[in-house]
This record gives sequence, C-alpha cells and structure tokens, in this order.
Amino acid sequence: MSWQTWLEAAATAREEAGLTRQLRPRGPHDATSKAHSIDLAGNDYLGLSGHLDVRRAAAEAAMLWGGGAGASRLVTGTLTLHGELEAELADWLGQPGALTFSSGYHANLSVVSALADKSAHVVSDAHIHASLIDAVRLSRSQLTVVPHNNVAAVQAALAARPGVRTLVLAESVYSVLGDEAPLIELAEVCAAYGALLVVDEAHGVGVHGPGLVARHGLAGRPDVLVTATLSKSLGSQGGAVLGPRAVLDHLVNTARPFIFDTGLAPASAAAALAAARVARSRPELADTIRARVTGLAKTLGVPAPAGAVLSVPVPSPEAAVAAQAELLAEGVRVGCFRPPSVPDGVSRLRVTAGAGVTDEEWERAAKAIDAIVGGDR
Amino acid sequence: MSWQTWLEAAATAREEAGLTRQLRPRGPHDATSKAHSIDLAGNDYLGLSGHLDVRRAAAEAAMLWGGGAGASRLVTGTLTLHGELEAELADWLGQPGALTFSSGYHANLSVVSALADKSAHVVSDAHIHASLIDAVRLSRSQLTVVPHNNVAAVQAALAARPGVRTLVLAESVYSVLGDEAPLIELAEVCAAYGALLVVDEAHGVGVHGPGLVARHGLAGRPDVLVTATLSKSLGSQGGAVLGPRAVLDHLVNTARPFIFDTGLAPASAAAALAAARVARSRPELADTIRARVTGLAKTLGVPAPAGAVLSVPVPSPEAAVAAQAELLAEGVRVGCFRPPSVPDGVSRLRVTAGAGVTDEEWERAAKAIDAIVGGDR
Ligand SMILES: Cc1ncc(COP(=O)(O)O)c(C=O)c1O
Ligand SMILES: Cc1ncc(COP(=O)(O)O)c(C=O)c1O
Repeated sequence: MSWQTWLEAAATAREEAGLTRQLRPRGPHDATSKAHSIDLAGNDYLGLSGHLDVRRAAAEAAMLWGGGAGASRLVTGTLTLHGELEAELADWLGQPGALTFSSGYHANLSVVSALADKSAHVVSDAHIHASLIDAVRLSRSQLTVVPHNNVAAVQAALAARPGVRTLVLAESVYSVLGDEAPLIELAEVCAAYGALLVVDEAHGVGVHGPGLVARHGLAGRPDVLVTATLSKSLGSQGGAVLGPRAVLDHLVNTARPFIFDTGLAPASAAAALAAARVARSRPELADTIRARVTGLAKTLGVPAPAGAVLSVPVPSPEAAVAAQAELLAEGVRVGCFRPPSVPDGVSRLRVTAGAGVTDEEWERAAKAIDAIVGGDR
Repeated sequence: MSWQTWLEAAATAREEAGLTRQLRPRGPHDATSKAHSIDLAGNDYLGLSGHLDVRRAAAEAAMLWGGGAGASRLVTGTLTLHGELEAELADWLGQPGALTFSSGYHANLSVVSALADKSAHVVSDAHIHASLIDAVRLSRSQLTVVPHNNVAAVQAALAARPGVRTLVLAESVYSVLGDEAPLIELAEVCAAYGALLVVDEAHGVGVHGPGLVARHGLAGRPDVLVTATLSKSLGSQGGAVLGPRAVLDHLVNTARPFIFDTGLAPASAAAALAAARVARSRPELADTIRARVTGLAKTLGVPAPAGAVLSVPVPSPEAAVAAQAELLAEGVRVGCFRPPSVPDGVSRLRVTAGAGVTDEEWERAAKAIDAIVGGDR
C-alpha cells in the first residue's frame, strides 16, 4: 500500500468513527476581550500560568539567559537556574533531590527506560498515562498490567516473580478517572517485595500542596520515586523526577531522553520556580479547588474526584462533542475525553475546577454545566 | 538483586570505565563576568538565543500569554502563537505545513511512532540520533540498519521488502560525525520504491539557511518529511515536523507524544519565531559559521564538516576529558563525545564554530585549540 493510500484510509476511518481531531487555536487569556470564555478545560489548576510573579519571572529569565539553554544538560545546558528550580522542588516535595526535564513526558520516559531493561519486571496500573506506557515499551522490560487500583493484583504480580528487579507504576491522581491511588498500601507491598514504586504526581502536586506522596508521609523513602510535570499546577513547561541521589545520578548517566535532549528553556524553568513559590505560600488556592470540585460533583451526582478535574461520563463521543459545543456557546470551555485517549472507551466531559477563574465565573460555569449535562442524566 | 545493589553496581562500572558524567551548572552568558569563557560547546549555532529580538520576544510572550500553554494541544493548548510559528517555519523551509512539539526529541518520536507500526519497515542510517532510535523502538516496526551514508545499502533494503510501507531515516547533517547525507540520491531511491524519506534537520536548519532539504530542491515533495529542533540554531526549545498536511493531520490524530503532552511554552514559541525571522533576514550569520569551521578544520588537518560542529577525534575518553579541561583553563569551553553517546566508540572533541562569539574570541579560541589538540596529532 502506498503512503498516500494508507494516510487516506486512516483519515477516512477516523472520519467515519466520528473521531477526527482538529487543533483550535486560542488567543491569550484576556479578560477584556469579547471572545473571553471561562476556561475549565486546561490543566493550569492553580491559575499560576498567568500569575504576575510567574509571568515576570519568565520574562526576566528570558532577558537574562536568552531563549534557550543552548545545549543538552551534560554539555553546557545545565544552568544555575535549573539547580535553583531542582532545589526548590526537592525541598517542597520533601525529597533528597530533583532532576528537571524538557517535559513531564520526558521525565516518565527517562525514569522507566533508564531503570528497567529486558531483565526487569514492570507492574503497571491499567489506567496509567500514555507517557508511562511508551516508557515501558522503550525499556523492553517484562510488563504485567494489573486492574485499576487493585493492590492485591500488584502483590500477586510481585509474588509471581520473586528476586526480579521490579518497578511498580501508579499515578497519585489518575488523569482520566480522577481518582486516587492507594499509595500507602502500594508502598507497603513494594517494600515487602523489594520493588521500586514510581508515582506520577502530574495531577497531585499543587492540587494537594507538595503532592500525595508527601501528604501520606512517603516522601524521601528510598523505594518511592516521584515524577512530576511543570506544565499543570506549575503553569509552565517541563517535568521532574524526585528521589534518592543514586537514582538521579543514574538518570544523568543513562537516561537517553535526558542525555540527548536540550535543557529546559530558562523562561520555563523560571516560571515553574516562581509558581512553586506562590503555591507554597498560598495553600488556600488548593482549598478553592477542593471546594469547587466537591460542590459541582454533588450537584451533578457524580463521585468527587481526588484531583482538580471532574470527569462526567456521557453516552457517546458525539454526545460529548455536542455538550462541549453547547457549553462553548455559553462561554464555558470544557474538555472532552474520547477514544482512543481513554483506556476504557467511555467518553467523558472533563471539567477543571481550577483556582484560575473568579468565584463569579465559576458559579456561572457550574450553572451552565448543570443545565446542559445535568439535564441529560 | 536489590535496587540499591543494582544502582551501586552500575555506578561502580561507570566509574571504573572512566565514564561517569556530572552536571556542571553555568551562569548566564555575561560578557562582563570574570568567569566568562568562550562557549564553543553549545548548539546555539547562530548565536540567536541571546539576540535582543529573541530575548524580547520571549519576554513579551511570557507577559502576554503566561508561563505555559496550559493544556495539551488538542484541548486548549494550541495558541495562535503556535500557528504563527508554524506558518513562519513552513514558509521558510518551503513546506506545505509545520507542526510544533515540546522538543525535537518529541518531534522525532512522534513522526516515526505515528507513521510506522508492526507492519511497516524502517530503514535507518547507522549514525542516526538517539531520539530516532527510540522512536523506531516505540513504533515496533521492522528495522533495517544500514551502514552510514550508504545509498546502495538503502536501495538493497528497500528492494528486499517490496510493497511494504517503508520509512527511511537520515539526518541532513549528522550530529557526531558532522558530515552530510546524500539527500538527493536518498530521495531518488525512496521515490523509486515508494518509501517516505524522513530527514532530521536538527543541525541543518539555520546553518544552511532553510536547511539542506530546501537547498537541494527537495522541500515540498510529498515523500520527503523534515523534522527540526527549535533548540539549536533557533536558540529556544521545541521541535517541529514539516511536510504535507495529510501527514501533519495524521500526527495530530495519532501521535501519542503530541496528543498526551502539554503544548510548547509561549516564551519558547515566540523565541523560536523571532529567531527564525532574524536567521532569514541575516544570511551572513551562516556564512560566518562556514568560514570559521572550514578554517579551523584546515588548521587541524581534519575534514571540514557539513555543519557548524567540528569533530576532532582523540585517542581515548580520558584524553578527551583532559584536553577539554586544558581548554577550559584557557577560557575556552568545548564539548566532548565519549562512549556510550557515540555510535562508533571513538571519543572526540566537539567544537562549535558558531556565529555567537566575536571574531576576536574565535581567533583566540582557535589558537588555543590548535595548541592543545593540534600538538597531539
Ligand atoms: C499523568 C500524566 N503524566 C505525564 C504527563 C505529561 O506531562 P507533560 O505535558 O509535561 O509532558 C501528563 C499530561 O500531559 C499526565 O496527565
Ligand atoms: C540530530 C538531532 N535530532 C534531534 C535532537 C533533539 O532535539 P531537542 O534537543 O530539541 O529535543 C538532537 C539534539 O538534541 C539532535 O542532535
């Protein structure tokens, strides 16, 4: 089959399944603009991307350091600014050290592919993020996928291969379902079998202050690693791995997506650093999220999520797209999850109860959502 | 084996082989600082990371748009700024369209993993970049590695699997060897067999204006795709894929490292856009690079590279590190390639003849390099 025929066939199949995706560019968030809509679709949970401290820090770093890091981290692309950011993140999350990456995706690719190889075993929750799935594939390790949040299944998988170096992968707050991992139990089981627990805190850091690993007293344990993104609660771009120095040194020496990639841009590093400082000094931002998300979940009769994102199941991909369009017409922007980006095939509206909109905007948006999706149910 | 034992064993093995790597943070490039050294190690080939237009554009974008894109590109993370950058890149490189990514690494992971699957064949040059190697692994396609720059071997690989959808992977300028791919011949062979040629222009764009694909009249062909990074000549962070709309639409719909990753930070997008405009309007920057690299190659008696980077082979990893340290003591910062980051096991000094240093600095650096490495030969 020629490339052209193959591409056309794939496009037609998407079209027929109602699953064609298109990019819809938006302008800057500008409260004075006529086109202003209430953004409940993004992951800027604490509203820090637009915080003046964050914007100023990014702008100043761009002026001082230039547009890019200029090289990979091991050449001349490690800036003292990266070090400051890493120290701040480690201190906040209660970890011995941190290493930053150009994206959260890269942090996940790096940690799994550098630690696991053909001789290693990876036990992964069924709802793990695409970046961790790709990471396991890159590592060529032996994979056991266990049912979602099932500690007994994790234990059985560990018991089945005694003495094999094993990584267990979980998210502290799952991105699609929005529920929380049983971290304490997972850490216990991992400790009992000598496995290393890797917790992706992409949706936990910020929304739960230093994250759920820290909240559960698991930070700093030598057998619990944390990965994080700088692009959600920290309002920037980039990722991080946090844990023992021996692990971070191993990543610096062996993680290909770290070694062969340009260092994080100065403006992004500075933005994340400023955002971490604001988040630490203003814990009430996270409280706002909890209050909003719990309130809306109650109104809609869906379970309250562990994070900032409310998932509202809808009957079909088409229904999700239609509800999203109706809400947009009301000036409310929400996301929607459709196959193939949901592990269980269920389409959902995705509503971020972030701290970045005013109380009044939130009330207005919540009413519109209830009217459109609440009525459907 | 326990995780701790395994990590220690790996660290000891690195130590014994003399291959332990450490991050060495640097401060901002500040010509007034006492610690100022001449940086010939980075990839900021045109010196644009620190160009005032680029720094200002990044700073203004951070103030206007905030620290991050706030979401993945398919949710609300596509900014009109991304569109401007993509239009500028496509126009410059003579391509129908462009799609930007959070890194050049992601651009490569995306294009190969979205286009190739188990049923596809990938023919890869032996010296291809780590990101493309990882990309092939992610794609699970059938891989044939051919000797470096060997068109006959590519042809034989294509002839061996007639009718199979095939990608051929090359770099326009190879990152370690610094030589040029036989692009015209490769494109001919690909056309003859219906294969798609993917050319990584990470080290070609900027150094050769719009890149070697464009220079050789191959831009805009439906069977030649280009990947690029925004982090070298464009002085920023990020990556891009350039080619037919049908391919870009396919990536938007299926490339996991695009779909499940936060959009490129506004400051980085704006920096790359400004840098592209400067690069287009000042072709003499690329001429400076050519003159410098050719001159130094002649002095040292090594072949002149096709790009901005001169590779100077040295007898051992230890010799490379020692020469690098001697140069640093003279105020000249060069890179060094050591196993395992070189495909052929040969250690090299890596000297960037970029346009970012003054003529006087370049002369001084070139003398020091000749004194230290020239004498060894
Ligand atoms: C759970 C999880 N991990 C990792 C990532 C990747 O982070 P980034 O966007 O910084 O690459 C995301 C989302 O983007 C995520 O939801
Ligand atoms: C040939 C080549 N391709 C891709 C990349 C990756 O680009 P980036 O650093 O933007 O991820 C690099 C270097 O970093 C490279 O040398």
